[in-house]
Amino acid sequence: MYESFMRRAIALSCQGVDTGGGPFGAVVVKDGDIIGEGMNRVVPNADPTAHAEIVAIRAACAALGTHDLTGAVIVSSCEPCPMCLGAIWWARIGLVIYGNDRMDAAAIGFDDAALYAEVAAPQEARRLPARRVLAEEALSAFQLWQAKPDKVPY
Amino acid sequence: MYESFMRRAIALSCQGVDTGGGPFGAVVVKDGDIIGEGMNRVVPNADPTAHAEIVAIRAACAALGTHDLTGAVIVSSCEPCPMCLGAIWWARIGLVIYGNDRMDAAAIGFDDAALYAEVAAPQEARRLPARRVLAEEALSAFQLWQAKPDKVPY
Repeated sequence: MYESFMRRAIALSCQGVDTGGGPFGAVVVKDGDIIGEGMNRVVPNADPTAHAEIVAIRAACAALGTHDLTGAVIVSSCEPCPMCLGAIWWARIGLVIYGNDRMDAAAIGFDDAALYAEVAAPQEARRLPARRVLAEEALSAFQLWQAKPDKVPY
Repeated sequence: MYESFMRRAIALSCQGVDTGGGPFGAVVVKDGDIIGEGMNRVVPNADPTAHAEIVAIRAACAALGTHDLTGAVIVSSCEPCPMCLGAIWWARIGLVIYGNDRMDAAAIGFDDAALYAEVAAPQEARRLPARRVLAEEALSAFQLWQAKPDKVPY
């Protein structure tokens, strides 16, 4: 039942290549309609977060005026990377439909495997070093949040 | 040496709470200067990807006109979630400095642990279901990419 939406995602992925981006496209679908579309715009938009899924999620949220896409499905021409999987998670999307998988992507030079390993690794084993500073002071915003009576959890 | 930048990230995290967002702030630093700032804007911007780190990275990239932040450091009031760690990775940032850790965040209701487990899990063990369709057709954009003589890898 998702074939027609996947064909649109694939068309966007081809359009992405034709317009200076990477070969990835995605659509967000809710109640049978496409509510957001995206193609990879990392290079043309000078934005490393502009993967097709993130572009499509931001478009869908802008269209609906909410950060919460509960009940929506994302149809992506390729299996999402960890950044995009995180975005899908935070958007509360309920299902991922994909075409190419990470092995297909690795075969043309987009190797998400290292990032999957990085996220899964304990911090001390990561390639990207991290250091903690001012832990006590940093708690101040958390205390503000806790004390705020009209906060909107998300 | 990152204390002053962390104090700015903490100030942004408090400003985030005061302006309807979550208690998170971040700055991107290069050559000793802040080149991008962000605070959590998920609810006010209706954008689930608007974590402080992503906002700061997008601002830094817009300021420099490139998707590549090689040589930059991100200073975040809290340990990055997997989505943000992915964005930091794709931006080629070389060091993460953080204040609160994921246990501090969990203690006030921001539990990134489930997402870390999700990204680390094999697809069949994830909470978020995924299905593959039209794998053959989806390869078309990858073939276009491979054949494109003037492609810009990223």
